[in-house]
Amino acid sequence: MYLCRRIPKHLQSSLKNVKHNKSTIAPEQVQSESSVVVSSRLIEELQGVVGKSNISTAEAVREQHGHDESYHPTSLPDCVIFAENTEQVSHIAKLCNNSRTPLIPFGTGTGLEGGINAIKGGVCLNLSKMDKILSVNQEDFDATVEAGVSRQTLNTYLRDTGLLFPIDPGADASLCGMCATSASGTNAVRYGTMRENVLNLEVVLPDGRIFDTAGTGRRTKKTSAGYNLTNLFVGSEGTLGIITKATLRLYGIPECTTSAVCSFPSVQNAVDTTVNILQCGIQMARIEFLDEVAIDAFNKYSKYDMNVAPSLFMEFAGSDGTLDKQVEVVSEIAQMNGGSDFKWAQEAEERNRLWKARHDIVYACMALQPGSKPYSTDVCVPISNLPDVIIKSKQLIDEAGVIGPMVGHVGDGNFHVFFPVDRSNPEQVQKIKDVAKQMALIAQELDGTCTGEHGIGLGKRELLEREIGEEGISVMKQVKSAFDPNNIMNPGKVFC
Amino acid sequence: MYLCRRIPKHLQSSLKNVKHNKSTIAPEQVQSESSVVVSSRLIEELQGVVGKSNISTAEAVREQHGHDESYHPTSLPDCVIFAENTEQVSHIAKLCNNSRTPLIPFGTGTGLEGGINAIKGGVCLNLSKMDKILSVNQEDFDATVEAGVSRQTLNTYLRDTGLLFPIDPGADASLCGMCATSASGTNAVRYGTMRENVLNLEVVLPDGRIFDTAGTGRRTKKTSAGYNLTNLFVGSEGTLGIITKATLRLYGIPECTTSAVCSFPSVQNAVDTTVNILQCGIQMARIEFLDEVAIDAFNKYSKYDMNVAPSLFMEFAGSDGTLDKQVEVVSEIAQMNGGSDFKWAQEAEERNRLWKARHDIVYACMALQPGSKPYSTDVCVPISNLPDVIIKSKQLIDEAGVIGPMVGHVGDGNFHVFFPVDRSNPEQVQKIKDVAKQMALIAQELDGTCTGEHGIGLGKRELLEREIGEEGISVMKQVKSAFDPNNIMNPGKVFC
Repeated sequence: MYLCRRIPKHLQSSLKNVKHNKSTIAPEQVQSESSVVVSSRLIEELQGVVGKSNISTAEAVREQHGHDESYHPTSLPDCVIFAENTEQVSHIAKLCNNSRTPLIPFGTGTGLEGGINAIKGGVCLNLSKMDKILSVNQEDFDATVEAGVSRQTLNTYLRDTGLLFPIDPGADASLCGMCATSASGTNAVRYGTMRENVLNLEVVLPDGRIFDTAGTGRRTKKTSAGYNLTNLFVGSEGTLGIITKATLRLYGIPECTTSAVCSFPSVQNAVDTTVNILQCGIQMARIEFLDEVAIDAFNKYSKYDMNVAPSLFMEFAGSDGTLDKQVEVVSEIAQMNGGSDFKWAQEAEERNRLWKARHDIVYACMALQPGSKPYSTDVCVPISNLPDVIIKSKQLIDEAGVIGPMVGHVGDGNFHVFFPVDRSNPEQVQKIKDVAKQMALIAQELDGTCTGEHGIGLGKRELLEREIGEEGISVMKQVKSAFDPNNIMNPGKVFC
Repeated sequence: MYLCRRIPKHLQSSLKNVKHNKSTIAPEQVQSESSVVVSSRLIEELQGVVGKSNISTAEAVREQHGHDESYHPTSLPDCVIFAENTEQVSHIAKLCNNSRTPLIPFGTGTGLEGGINAIKGGVCLNLSKMDKILSVNQEDFDATVEAGVSRQTLNTYLRDTGLLFPIDPGADASLCGMCATSASGTNAVRYGTMRENVLNLEVVLPDGRIFDTAGTGRRTKKTSAGYNLTNLFVGSEGTLGIITKATLRLYGIPECTTSAVCSFPSVQNAVDTTVNILQCGIQMARIEFLDEVAIDAFNKYSKYDMNVAPSLFMEFAGSDGTLDKQVEVVSEIAQMNGGSDFKWAQEAEERNRLWKARHDIVYACMALQPGSKPYSTDVCVPISNLPDVIIKSKQLIDEAGVIGPMVGHVGDGNFHVFFPVDRSNPEQVQKIKDVAKQMALIAQELDGTCTGEHGIGLGKRELLEREIGEEGISVMKQVKSAFDPNNIMNPGKVFC
């Protein structure tokens, strides 16, 4: 679940007139581990690649590119450069590599782990001008897009084809940014994550080499040809190279869809229902958990009157005539587990309103403490351990006396607590950080991970070490060194 | 599609009495690029790790381990070692690494690209004694197995749980071997390949380090924690390290299943039917193509009387009451494309006989030229290009005057020609090699790959270079060097 943010067009278009000011961001908002400054010579060389109008050192632009949607303090890049094609990206990478200057790829800045914050300064590479949808192959269910194309832009373009790209993290993120963070969301239970839905990637390495991870133009559903470099770059968070194109798997829009909300006496009942449904081999389109705190926020913000109790939001999708039986079986399973107060949304308009409200949940949670920023956890565990993690997390939240609404992709064992955090209240920030860390440790003890879909970025580097151990970290660092020996690609992310 | 081969138990049990003879295999059957000989000192050190009874230099044992099911000539390892646990594997790797001795992991030897042939001699590591099913988590739909556990062994063990591991390459291959080759098969259209179904791997690196690719004991459906090392080892063909354990995704056995065979006037009609079905978002359990030559072989070998024409073998699976509508829609689509002569197999017994016959197709094809060995192609293309590749391949086969029955995982754009080859007829071998290479080149021209599921091994190293290009190969070699700087892991495979 992400918020949505874009670089205002007026900033992009007015860059050519921008003066090169020094940053005047208040120090408490800015975290910096180093004072790397891009040399004026490098700026000139970069201007030679993209033209003066596509590079800026203006404070407003750097600030815009110095943070994502997370609580992590802003860290300004020394300059922001807008590339218009892969060849420019290759030149930019070479120049940064030769001068050992940090290079940070930027999509839409909608991440939640500080993945684009320039903690070591350097050059922020904004890819939003590479916005072409290069091909859509309807019969083959695939599309190839440039780095700047967003999820909603692709799906709008696909509207008349009967196809869709289903991975939906909430924000209108760039598709290549979604590749970089290995994003997923509410549809993952049916369609998988980005890992399962990328057929090929065009990548630029720090030394400027350009290559397709599956070979130029390849777009087969299956391949056993050499190492799976595609899935090495999916989730690499900009630390191995720059993803400049993606070939993605598309799906037919199901003939029929219907949604329902059902409430339960306990978290255990809601999770048991999910397990039973999956065990029956019923393919849900979505199955989402909201606890009573989240439901209360949901009701208040989106003007619903759901029963304030642990609830499942479910969506069924299939071909005409195949749904009734599924709905019947799922309803029986839910009732068997104490489920009640079914609310059905069969009409498209009603369904869209329901899922829009579900996607607005993070705003709803922030409204529980006006003026707050969201601090999101992202643990993921084997589904049988989910009640345990949720119950222990609730205890921690209660003990800390903070507001912690829970929203879960329960079919995947992944859930978030969207803490509304007042950043001017250090005590509250610390309490929330402590609870979030404890939750991650509990998940790790239960065969789980600290991050199901948000990535490591800045926020979970120590947790990653604990999660994969010394050997695992040493192997990942070997991979990093093989691709980026000078450590210029998004330095300080993923690893401490 | 693989054949099935296992090391006879009597050979394993009698190893302790084996004398260390020199190889007397006829030279023409043996290909060797080098004369690396394992030193007697290393043999002694290895005996110290696994005991004398678990290591052999006997000709019969080395011959057994010197080839897979492919046409590639036997290349003998200098010795064969049987490990019983991961710690032993780690010691073995260290000893081989320190002495720069080639080390070749061996599962069941059922591959089709010479992946285990010891072309540089060295130590063959047989993992069949690591045969424990370590855990099955029914609620979480996962199981963890040691390297020697085979696909059928796991599914037999799961019989009473209502769960299955669906990936089915045909042979009763070891599950970790299936990880190493990124195997798939007839069920991939529904469940994906090994890439989508491995949650975690325990791996031993050449320097003896042991680690879990997703962190010790992790088994979540989703993770964004660091680099995707799991999918770097899936498909690595034993060239990066040794896979000693795998945590796999399981699925609920569908409530209802029904199968059908339908014949078509042309290949185009059969493929159009497949595309239409997929475009309707109908989830087939299997959809397999057999051309008229394969159907003829099928009829003769398995005593069927199918219409000798391009045909689709289809399987529908789902919960009770959801199938009828699917069957109805698919039947309409097939008829719309000229499909006729539907043969239904609703009863389990009838279905099992049908799919057993489908899996026996390679034997059926060999029976077209008695005394033959199979030579299998494995191209995979975007589905819209499939008719083009199939028609051009048929022309090549006709021009060459060889027998070339076609069997395809058509929903994935992947198909095989099972050439019956008489290895004593060099002219026929050469003709078939030429046709197979031409088919791969045609597939590559049509956005496809030379291998959808068999891997590169020895047979497709040059084709891989053409497929992913100079940059891609250089990047893969960087990965190889990072993990195996001394090039001891299955040397000479994947890369020339």
